[in-house]
Amino acid sequence: MEGAMTDFPPPFSGTQQDETLELRPKFNAEGLVAAIAQDAASGDVLMLAWMNADALAATLETGRATYWSRSRGELWVKGETSGHVQDVVEVRVDCDQDAVLLRVNQTGGACHTGRDSCFYRTVGPDGQTLSHDTNSD
Amino acid sequence: MEGAMTDFPPPFSGTQQDETLELRPKFNAEGLVAAIAQDAASGDVLMLAWMNADALAATLETGRATYWSRSRGELWVKGETSGHVQDVVEVRVDCDQDAVLLRVNQTGGACHTGRDSCFYRTVGPDGQTLSHDTNSD
Repeated sequence: MEGAMTDFPPPFSGTQQDETLELRPKFNAEGLVAAIAQDAASGDVLMLAWMNADALAATLETGRATYWSRSRGELWVKGETSGHVQDVVEVRVDCDQDAVLLRVNQTGGACHTGRDSCFYRTVGPDGQTLSHDTNSD
Repeated sequence: MEGAMTDFPPPFSGTQQDETLELRPKFNAEGLVAAIAQDAASGDVLMLAWMNADALAATLETGRATYWSRSRGELWVKGETSGHVQDVVEVRVDCDQDAVLLRVNQTGGACHTGRDSCFYRTVGPDGQTLSHDTNSD
């Protein structure tokens, strides 16, 4: 994102990136890293969203999950409108630091459909049809 | 991916996509969906990777997690070289079907570094330094 106000040190490559103890996020060509939100209590995976440098910095600073809305082209404090906020318990990065994992305490449903998790449908044995997981409804 | 042999029906938009009971993956401009692998037993998030249509179809057909390697530009049957395969227990899709969640039985470490999960480092309270999660080492 051209307008990002936050600077992180640049990523290393290879093993050095895997082992560094510095946060050096590897943003993609659009300036984003993938962000997985996981319920800290149940372990359920709630959603997948995206963060630019500002969103990641805001999440770390405020303890409220903040993403980059690709559709709206703006920072998105999760739950700002709905009240369905995510209080961040822990932030993890993966080996090459192009993905982050947030363990969160989720208020209300994480999904915009109102469901607890965005992953409320399972693929059936035919590989074509979906069924609803009633636990997530 | 131009060379993809597998066709899925195209995604709907909005609520129709959220509620359909047909698998209609929403591939991005590069023909990919994000794929989260989660340990079916522990609930630990293991890794984030990518799938094109062929990788998703192969995963559904074989029950072995198969991704698209962006660095190598080829299908990647997870564990084919290392033996660290993922047997897929369940495949879920998110509301707009641009992400899938695999619940897997993981043999060996999921991470290429040998660790159980790729998310083996947590971001410290300073928002800059990482520490190793000894549970994942």
